[in-house]
Amino acid sequence: MEPVNLSDYESAAREKLPLEIFDYYAGGANDEITVQENLSAYSRLRLQYRVLRDVSQRSLATTVLDHSLAFPVLIAPTAFHRLAHPEGELATARAAAQAGTIMIVSMVATTPIEEVAKVNATIPNAPCLWMQIYILPDRNFTTEMVHRAEAAGCGALVLTVDSPVFGQRERDIRHRFHELPDGLSLANFTTFNGIAPARFEFKADLTWEDVSWLRSTTDLPILLKGIVHPDDACLALTHGVDGIIVSNHGGRQLDTAVATIEVLPEIVDAVAGRLPVLVDGGIRRGTDVLKALALGAAAVAIGRPVLWGLTVAGEAGVGNVLELLRREMDLAMALCGCSSIVEINRDLLRL
Amino acid sequence: MEPVNLSDYESAAREKLPLEIFDYYAGGANDEITVQENLSAYSRLRLQYRVLRDVSQRSLATTVLDHSLAFPVLIAPTAFHRLAHPEGELATARAAAQAGTIMIVSMVATTPIEEVAKVNATIPNAPCLWMQIYILPDRNFTTEMVHRAEAAGCGALVLTVDSPVFGQRERDIRHRFHELPDGLSLANFTTFNGIAPARFEFKADLTWEDVSWLRSTTDLPILLKGIVHPDDACLALTHGVDGIIVSNHGGRQLDTAVATIEVLPEIVDAVAGRLPVLVDGGIRRGTDVLKALALGAAAVAIGRPVLWGLTVAGEAGVGNVLELLRREMDLAMALCGCSSIVEINRDLLRL
Amino acid sequence: MEPVNLSDYESAAREKLPLEIFDYYAGGANDEITVQENLSAYSRLRLQYRVLRDVSQRSLATTVLDHSLAFPVLIAPTAFHRLAHPEGELATARAAAQAGTIMIVSMVATTPIEEVAKVNATIPNAPCLWMQIYILPDRNFTTEMVHRAEAAGCGALVLTVDSPVFGQRERDIRHRFHELPDGLSLANFTTFNGIAPARFEFKADLTWEDVSWLRSTTDLPILLKGIVHPDDACLALTHGVDGIIVSNHGGRQLDTAVATIEVLPEIVDAVAGRLPVLVDGGIRRGTDVLKALALGAAAVAIGRPVLWGLTVAGEAGVGNVLELLRREMDLAMALCGCSSIVEINRDLLRL
Amino acid sequence: MEPVNLSDYESAAREKLPLEIFDYYAGGANDEITVQENLSAYSRLRLQYRVLRDVSQRSLATTVLDHSLAFPVLIAPTAFHRLAHPEGELATARAAAQAGTIMIVSMVATTPIEEVAKVNATIPNAPCLWMQIYILPDRNFTTEMVHRAEAAGCGALVLTVDSPVFGQRERDIRHRFHELPDGLSLANFTTFNGIAPARFEFKADLTWEDVSWLRSTTDLPILLKGIVHPDDACLALTHGVDGIIVSNHGGRQLDTAVATIEVLPEIVDAVAGRLPVLVDGGIRRGTDVLKALALGAAAVAIGRPVLWGLTVAGEAGVGNVLELLRREMDLAMALCGCSSIVEINRDLLRL
Repeated sequence: MEPVNLSDYESAAREKLPLEIFDYYAGGANDEITVQENLSAYSRLRLQYRVLRDVSQRSLATTVLDHSLAFPVLIAPTAFHRLAHPEGELATARAAAQAGTIMIVSMVATTPIEEVAKVNATIPNAPCLWMQIYILPDRNFTTEMVHRAEAAGCGALVLTVDSPVFGQRERDIRHRFHELPDGLSLANFTTFNGIAPARFEFKADLTWEDVSWLRSTTDLPILLKGIVHPDDACLALTHGVDGIIVSNHGGRQLDTAVATIEVLPEIVDAVAGRLPVLVDGGIRRGTDVLKALALGAAAVAIGRPVLWGLTVAGEAGVGNVLELLRREMDLAMALCGCSSIVEINRDLLRL
Repeated sequence: MEPVNLSDYESAAREKLPLEIFDYYAGGANDEITVQENLSAYSRLRLQYRVLRDVSQRSLATTVLDHSLAFPVLIAPTAFHRLAHPEGELATARAAAQAGTIMIVSMVATTPIEEVAKVNATIPNAPCLWMQIYILPDRNFTTEMVHRAEAAGCGALVLTVDSPVFGQRERDIRHRFHELPDGLSLANFTTFNGIAPARFEFKADLTWEDVSWLRSTTDLPILLKGIVHPDDACLALTHGVDGIIVSNHGGRQLDTAVATIEVLPEIVDAVAGRLPVLVDGGIRRGTDVLKALALGAAAVAIGRPVLWGLTVAGEAGVGNVLELLRREMDLAMALCGCSSIVEINRDLLRL
Repeated sequence: MEPVNLSDYESAAREKLPLEIFDYYAGGANDEITVQENLSAYSRLRLQYRVLRDVSQRSLATTVLDHSLAFPVLIAPTAFHRLAHPEGELATARAAAQAGTIMIVSMVATTPIEEVAKVNATIPNAPCLWMQIYILPDRNFTTEMVHRAEAAGCGALVLTVDSPVFGQRERDIRHRFHELPDGLSLANFTTFNGIAPARFEFKADLTWEDVSWLRSTTDLPILLKGIVHPDDACLALTHGVDGIIVSNHGGRQLDTAVATIEVLPEIVDAVAGRLPVLVDGGIRRGTDVLKALALGAAAVAIGRPVLWGLTVAGEAGVGNVLELLRREMDLAMALCGCSSIVEINRDLLRL
Repeated sequence: MEPVNLSDYESAAREKLPLEIFDYYAGGANDEITVQENLSAYSRLRLQYRVLRDVSQRSLATTVLDHSLAFPVLIAPTAFHRLAHPEGELATARAAAQAGTIMIVSMVATTPIEEVAKVNATIPNAPCLWMQIYILPDRNFTTEMVHRAEAAGCGALVLTVDSPVFGQRERDIRHRFHELPDGLSLANFTTFNGIAPARFEFKADLTWEDVSWLRSTTDLPILLKGIVHPDDACLALTHGVDGIIVSNHGGRQLDTAVATIEVLPEIVDAVAGRLPVLVDGGIRRGTDVLKALALGAAAVAIGRPVLWGLTVAGEAGVGNVLELLRREMDLAMALCGCSSIVEINRDLLRL
């Protein structure tokens, strides 16, 4: 039966994927309390909608860092799309571009950024890609990666800051799932030095000094992904970054970390409009997108649902996931009395 | 076994109806969080009853917009009663009239309003009907509908304002339930232009201006149904309407919308007695009616339970549903120390 | 296996009793939300115990209305003990007297008060009985009942004030359980006029004036049972009563009524020591007794657990239920650092 | 399959142990509400982590009462280790010493303290043992026990103060589990007077005077274990003790007692740094340790998980339990942006 919502895609993907790969995508750190809490925190929020406003002409279009989006839902960076589908990141990129939104390509992709960018360029009026990076212990690698992102035409860098070390993902430990199957590789790493590394290490001494250094290496806008504390948001303001993505890494790093939507308002208050704030984690419904925007997010990003769409039907699946969410959000705006993104505000939520 | 309460009627109806029709009635938008929350919000409220008051003579009678009711429970407008029972809206109307209460006839009925009115007129001392309407894109249709309601002797118009577009009801999508079976039609629409329309569209640009226009077309009292925000209640005050029905469309339009009983107090406070405020959604027990009145409702309306009664036993079933609820409310009043509707107040609730 | 706690007695009684009788005892009004809430409200309260106090010599003895009790747990009035065991109220009375506590004999007993009193008198140092009464529409009956209670040596009258009408107990309706089996009768009614009545009616116009009238008919202390609102507690102060039992009739009258332990503190605050306040409903553990006393109760009363003990083993069963609860309370006091009843106070609870 | 976390060890131990022994360890008082609440109170706490701090060099080392610990997790005193494994307390002691932490040896051990101390002394750089004691009715026994602890080189005494009497553990009552199997004995008691006692009694008149007396008998630091009320913490300050362990005896004494982590902050506030405060009960994850430290604990202690490790694999099992927890805590610190114990503070928690 045709999937009706994003949850259907998860069910269908669970049927189709080998369990260890489904679990790699679906799982989180330790007891997965934060994975669940990301979701349930949205379910607890109540909409107090408005009526009798002309919602016949609705626009979901918005702009983030001067990039135009057809609707305020980006594709969050997730690893290893070819585990889900042979076309991997290329399929995802095509779907994102067709939908008029930004794919944040993971540095830990199974396709080199240049190939993803080439596909993106084939879609008329496609937004540019953004490139997610980790700063690795070897700064040369990062410099190279930044230059490649620039050369590939990426529109922004998304620096993940919540991962000085790997989280403990117990599903993977139980499946002994710790390396890519034959035929797949860390494609961006291979290209760098000609050899696919067996593994890579996070930089445990990553600090704000690294952010300043990264800032000095590029003119691309830089967003920090993984901030949940308002004090860190304030520090971001003084380090020349261009945006923040409130994220707990989908609950995959620190279990019992706060749900992102719970802390979004205090981060938004802390930055006070000086930076755009995005949020990911737990968004499964159009009403979730609307709630995030009502609490001050400039846009949201979705991770796992994209992988479920990719698993089920490749590019078409990702496209349908995005379209389902777009339609739900359009519907939620209509039912809340909002014709455009700017009309969505905290007054729609009963806190 | 004879149904003992409204929940029994739901169980019996589930047994009797084709699943797709049961689901059409029972279901709501998306994850049906608001459907459930409408119910559980009542269950969470606690009564702090009074004792040693003479409750030997109790009256549940009340007046809403100068219409006398035997007890403060109206029949909310619901679509397609002939899906539940061959006698459809006629059976419902007879039961309501016999019980001394008002049926709000849905514009989306399977029986023309004139026939429902004819049946209502046969019951001695029956309250008048109220007519629910949507303003459709074609204002002529609405004008015609209003004139027909007036001609049929309806006592008020109930304008639904929460539906600029259709909610996403996933049970219906899964059942591919999107049109009436053979032999049934949108009876009020058929009469209008001689042809049963395949479907109809909501007016997505419905605004307060339409309310003012409707106000100008008729002397009938107008109630707005679907308000949950106090600011909209205040706007209603300045647009010449005569009453408000706090409603979230039974959870069928915007999922995760606030439970109606949760927002009733702030709506009541906002209108400050200048308009009667009614409420629907989630009322299944006499104590629920009492709680709504304690929080300031002039009366309540019930939707799905009427359909369950209609399914199970036609007119008699609807009559018994109303009578069960009336008896429960009578009992709840006695046990709370209230002899009449006016004695029910917020002091009975422990908030 | 020997019952270890009061819950075990309930399980054993469920095995032994015909379902309709078990359900008559166990059930409550409508959805039994208050039945459950009476229990769970205790489970939610947290004890913040004290240590290093000499608890080697503990006394649970207390005095209520100048009556000495071995421990502060009375037997709440419950109907029809001979449904549970052939010896009925006589077995209960013997067990209560042996345990050194007060049985509040129900007017709706299956044994005349005189016989219960006779048995009570055979136990050395037994506390006196208290007699629960309803004021019926025929005041003569009540006068007679009061005189019989006085003559039988009862030490107080407990006037139930929460029952102007019968609650809707759906388990009984489903079982069509509405009269006593052959061989049992409303024994106090039979004696009164020589004929066992088929049924009896509550007095729906019971008011504070009746309380004043009752006050004028007897010198016995009068307690009002069924108060949950502090304003009613204040009215009690001005009507010459001697005590209050905070009760919601075990959740059998008004469903979704407040849990008794939830409202106890505000009742206690309202009377401010001018009257003793007792509480019943939901007490199953020694810690529950301690919590009620910590919140200001002079004593508690238990209903259903007595019936489970009576079912399982007659007098010995009731005795064991009382003894289990006494031991648990003794243990709870020791572990909270209390040697006597007066040392139990609100400071032991983390609210 | 290799256990991945402490919960896996519990499952494995449940498989391996006779039910009555598993239940003796796992069970608690009455309805085990506090047993569960100790756990769930941690799960409810949310971490609001910091990022971009150099966490490449992390130290979990800390000092409690001048004793150095490799990481702030002690082994709480638990009885009868030889029920879990033939090597009993000796295996536990070796594992603790190897891990660089303190074992608090129970007075109610199945191995004499001298033998445990001998094993501890064989491990290079092992922290000293601490000895848990009850003050028994016979003070001579306690004096002797203190002198033996001193002679054995114990570094502190842990006086349990929450046990004037035994809690009611219903699993044990149902299993009639009330004495040790053949071949095991209360080894410290046997040594004292040459005879293994059939049972022993707690001192129900234990008071602060006993604490002062104990203080006078030894120069060892004394910690009080079992305090949950800030007023008792304040009393501790004036009785010459050296530390407090916030504990509810693992929920084995007073059911519905507060969860330890819930009251930790107010105890910490009460002592205001004048004493180290430790906490036990419910710690199963590295994040739990971090949360306790964030709320002011100097260190934590774990009880049941050690017994599960001991059951599954003796010394190696205990060692692995400690190592799993150490690694999880190390990881949690890294992900919270903390390099050392002193950087962990309340700001990391969203209360």
